[in-house]
Amino acid sequence: MEKRKIILDCDPGHDDAITMLMAAIHPKIDLLGITIVAGNQTLDKTVVNGLNVSQLLNIDANVYAGMPKPLVREQVVADNVHGESGLDGPVFGPLNRQVEGTNAVKYIIDTLLASDGDITLVPVGPLTNIAVAMRMEPLIIPKIKEIVLMGGAYGTGNFTPSAEFNIFADPEAAHVVFSSGAPLVMMGLDLTHQTICTEDIIERMEAIGNDAAKLFGDIMRFTLKSQFECFGLAAGPLHDATCVGYLICPEAFETQEMFVEIDINRGPSYGRTVCDELNVLNKKANAKVGKKIDAERFWDLVEECIRMYSDVYAVVK
Amino acid sequence: MEKRKIILDCDPGHDDAITMLMAAIHPKIDLLGITIVAGNQTLDKTVVNGLNVSQLLNIDANVYAGMPKPLVREQVVADNVHGESGLDGPVFGPLNRQVEGTNAVKYIIDTLLASDGDITLVPVGPLTNIAVAMRMEPLIIPKIKEIVLMGGAYGTGNFTPSAEFNIFADPEAAHVVFSSGAPLVMMGLDLTHQTICTEDIIERMEAIGNDAAKLFGDIMRFTLKSQFECFGLAAGPLHDATCVGYLICPEAFETQEMFVEIDINRGPSYGRTVCDELNVLNKKANAKVGKKIDAERFWDLVEECIRMYSDVYAVVK
Amino acid sequence: MEKRKIILDCDPGHDDAITMLMAAIHPKIDLLGITIVAGNQTLDKTVVNGLNVSQLLNIDANVYAGMPKPLVREQVVADNVHGESGLDGPVFGPLNRQVEGTNAVKYIIDTLLASDGDITLVPVGPLTNIAVAMRMEPLIIPKIKEIVLMGGAYGTGNFTPSAEFNIFADPEAAHVVFSSGAPLVMMGLDLTHQTICTEDIIERMEAIGNDAAKLFGDIMRFTLKSQFECFGLAAGPLHDATCVGYLICPEAFETQEMFVEIDINRGPSYGRTVCDELNVLNKKANAKVGKKIDAERFWDLVEECIRMYSDVYAVVK
Amino acid sequence: MEKRKIILDCDPGHDDAITMLMAAIHPKIDLLGITIVAGNQTLDKTVVNGLNVSQLLNIDANVYAGMPKPLVREQVVADNVHGESGLDGPVFGPLNRQVEGTNAVKYIIDTLLASDGDITLVPVGPLTNIAVAMRMEPLIIPKIKEIVLMGGAYGTGNFTPSAEFNIFADPEAAHVVFSSGAPLVMMGLDLTHQTICTEDIIERMEAIGNDAAKLFGDIMRFTLKSQFECFGLAAGPLHDATCVGYLICPEAFETQEMFVEIDINRGPSYGRTVCDELNVLNKKANAKVGKKIDAERFWDLVEECIRMYSDVYAVVK
Repeated sequence: MEKRKIILDCDPGHDDAITMLMAAIHPKIDLLGITIVAGNQTLDKTVVNGLNVSQLLNIDANVYAGMPKPLVREQVVADNVHGESGLDGPVFGPLNRQVEGTNAVKYIIDTLLASDGDITLVPVGPLTNIAVAMRMEPLIIPKIKEIVLMGGAYGTGNFTPSAEFNIFADPEAAHVVFSSGAPLVMMGLDLTHQTICTEDIIERMEAIGNDAAKLFGDIMRFTLKSQFECFGLAAGPLHDATCVGYLICPEAFETQEMFVEIDINRGPSYGRTVCDELNVLNKKANAKVGKKIDAERFWDLVEECIRMYSDVYAVVK
Repeated sequence: MEKRKIILDCDPGHDDAITMLMAAIHPKIDLLGITIVAGNQTLDKTVVNGLNVSQLLNIDANVYAGMPKPLVREQVVADNVHGESGLDGPVFGPLNRQVEGTNAVKYIIDTLLASDGDITLVPVGPLTNIAVAMRMEPLIIPKIKEIVLMGGAYGTGNFTPSAEFNIFADPEAAHVVFSSGAPLVMMGLDLTHQTICTEDIIERMEAIGNDAAKLFGDIMRFTLKSQFECFGLAAGPLHDATCVGYLICPEAFETQEMFVEIDINRGPSYGRTVCDELNVLNKKANAKVGKKIDAERFWDLVEECIRMYSDVYAVVK
Repeated sequence: MEKRKIILDCDPGHDDAITMLMAAIHPKIDLLGITIVAGNQTLDKTVVNGLNVSQLLNIDANVYAGMPKPLVREQVVADNVHGESGLDGPVFGPLNRQVEGTNAVKYIIDTLLASDGDITLVPVGPLTNIAVAMRMEPLIIPKIKEIVLMGGAYGTGNFTPSAEFNIFADPEAAHVVFSSGAPLVMMGLDLTHQTICTEDIIERMEAIGNDAAKLFGDIMRFTLKSQFECFGLAAGPLHDATCVGYLICPEAFETQEMFVEIDINRGPSYGRTVCDELNVLNKKANAKVGKKIDAERFWDLVEECIRMYSDVYAVVK
Repeated sequence: MEKRKIILDCDPGHDDAITMLMAAIHPKIDLLGITIVAGNQTLDKTVVNGLNVSQLLNIDANVYAGMPKPLVREQVVADNVHGESGLDGPVFGPLNRQVEGTNAVKYIIDTLLASDGDITLVPVGPLTNIAVAMRMEPLIIPKIKEIVLMGGAYGTGNFTPSAEFNIFADPEAAHVVFSSGAPLVMMGLDLTHQTICTEDIIERMEAIGNDAAKLFGDIMRFTLKSQFECFGLAAGPLHDATCVGYLICPEAFETQEMFVEIDINRGPSYGRTVCDELNVLNKKANAKVGKKIDAERFWDLVEECIRMYSDVYAVVK
């Protein structure tokens, strides 16, 4: 079985941490590196969160810090959802792991340039790192096998009526990525809102009993609490993890090719992923947009990943 | 039973004609006047179409011509859907009726100013006439009982990925109306796309056998043909008629109060009705937005209206 | 000598009043009607000001009230410059004159349609009346001989860094007019700021000793006071009057043909008259833009107009 | 005498080359490094041009290549003015010098972070390198002593009616820099158009007879030719060199503190430096904007710099 080589670009973040958990362990994924960006919280915090998760799960991939600010706009963070630390909920031990000295943007550029075109980028935060890399070294664009990203919506947004948080946090970066010509898969709210993590699911995962299971539980219990407090919801979606789910098990996903343009006008649609669902513009599609997910298979996959940690630890420890 | 006094503002147009048919005959509606605007076609054509329908059905309401051009933007028409005449399909006899000498904008202003605040505006085309009236005489705004309009979408648009035709044809006019403070009910594509007229429904209506039934058939057969040619669809929605349906039978409709802002930036979301479905902005709602329609009851209502024409003709002729 | 037929469209307003004074009396001008728009103050006030000036100077032209609100945007007024009444300074007697029953927009449309194409529009306030007339009856456009307007700047604005007040007060209306195809002459701040009325000039005019002279003095003394308080200036420009000056004495003006586009994006350049002074776009010019005025000849002309009032009164009274 | 430490960020380019010539030799300037950006031509070409000039003049400063593409927008170059190579005119010998391995953005960040806050940035091309550095490492911002840039205009633009080329080539980068809080000096077209290089001036400089003089002549003769062909002008401005001129001899310049905002709306004012010359917004100034230059002293300074090369070469060779 050939592994899918990926760079995971994230802003941990609760669902980011679950995504790390899945990407690091599943045999179909070869996690080359983890690049961090500001988003759910400021970069100093998302880097610490990434290192904490990496250390707890003994993830075998370097962590690189990237852009602390969006490309053009003033910074916004999602502390309402992710708390003061950006990953409120789990309690981590003393942090021994360190971030790499190389900037994430340089790591992305160098890794792609040295590759055979077989690396997939998996950005599940604002697209700042990817956009700066593309503008700093356009030669990476033809080297990208695919970009499987979490962001946007063709329906209603969650941070504004029009925009999903990851895109709203850096619309200009999203514009750079969506107009780059690189093959895109977009997991937007239309799909991710189909992955609702309930109390039942949390208990099912916790029952596995290993560190990964406990991390999942701690993370998702906080998520449920914040989703209830922010939106009055009794359960919460696992947005970012759908991207890794898609790479492992694409048959659980239904996508549609669409032409997608980012609205970078500073009006009420700033940061919207304008998706030509009905193809009224008759333009060449630049993205596969997620429409449906088989949620049952998705949770099976999450469980499968969590269970793998027992074996790994048995070997590693 | 108290009748609801309305001014029907339309751009006939196929679904406009069915809306005229329903508004003119139903005992719960008191159709004060019909004002015409450019939209589905240029004003000269939509006026002729309005007069033709009015004459054929012997509608007892004056017809007024209004704005031939949108407020600010360059003109667009929907000839792809409505044909060269704007109402291709039905064949009308020689036209004897005439449009009134008073401009529709002046008629709307004068009628509202003279009213007791009991008149509902029912705009089912671009909002140019209403917007100009509001800006020319702001005192009409507190006189408006309600504006029940067809236009917009919180999901995908039909003329651009973001925008529905009526709003796209005059976004600035829509901005004037949506920010006016007048009570609004918005029947957007999200709701109107639930009223799909199939061959079965056409046959059911035609079986009634009067002039109104024949008109319905001629109109909807052309609509089915154009919907198939434009969009590959086997059936077509009856957008505009939902507004009159709502006034007669509101219990068949589910609406949600939302803050709605029109995007007038000239980017990819130009003409979008940005609806705060999740109330993330926490602003005061300015519109009831249609979410669901009981389509069965709607078609019953259409049938009821068509059947009434036999009786009316029996009396009139 | 052939008189130039004009409709003066204004928002009195101090410099508007001087413009009325000149347009009403000079033998080269045939003042057909005065249409009023909201601008320097709300419409109720600008109408009263227009009637007061008209009555005081016994002006032989009807006064029509037009648009009380701009086409699309929220209303702004220039009460900082023109005071609470919109024409603070002069004291008028009891007002006997009345505004016409016909709306200014209808008057403009009907007058142009009935004309032989020999009427010049002279808008010296926001362009709302003209824009609504053009959109309500596009057939007037080829009937317009010329539009000689005060507004805009290719240099620095006066209400925002980018925009002059008349255009900023209704940028969308300006867009309609500048893109209409009608022949335009634009007297912007670049030119009008060359007409600085000093204490010397006021004394020179007041010395004439008639009612018009007194009105000039009362108006310009207030203007000097407000220009000093608002901008720290010791003298003030007579913006609007340059349009009538141009019609009477074009040889005192230097203009350049330019392509002019109105910026209607809601950013820092909202309401700017973007003038292609260097013709870098290589587009067809749509306006003659005023660059230089012979100020000495201009003040001679103002004096000439004021002096004429003695004779007129001698005849009329 | 204390030398002013600068990093020269440029896109050679004709006037860029003269700027290098002046910055490298004048005893008041300590040229720490030369960073190159795409602008007048693509990055591969501007780098070669920078190296060629550096080699010819034996400039003692490393050359770093930076951003090949603007931050967000599609790339535009000024080949109409600067020719196919970006520095058409002079003929250079075989190129032996090489660009550094470090990216210009990283060089700027590292150099500023290691500094005592005494380094001035002198960007005379699009602001892409500076903007990316600021967003990648915001801690550099308080380390910047001053940014003395060539770009923008409060009057008419030269690439569009609104925008000067350097800003238009990357408006979003300019927005980042102008809103960064770093102290800015802006030499826009309003000032640089006062530095007109005529045939007389060329002959005066060429008469000095050294390599720098020959380079000046070759460059400016091509500039005169292209200014004539592009704009019909008989002479051409030396835009970029005013920045170094200002650092050496600020008393030859008149500036005014203004609040400057970059228009990043994609309308007709895209890329405009909106300068609040009259302080109508009453916002805190963020830039000293050049208004007047003593052109005679400026040319004396250029001559002084060219003459210095004889001495330098006498020593070096």
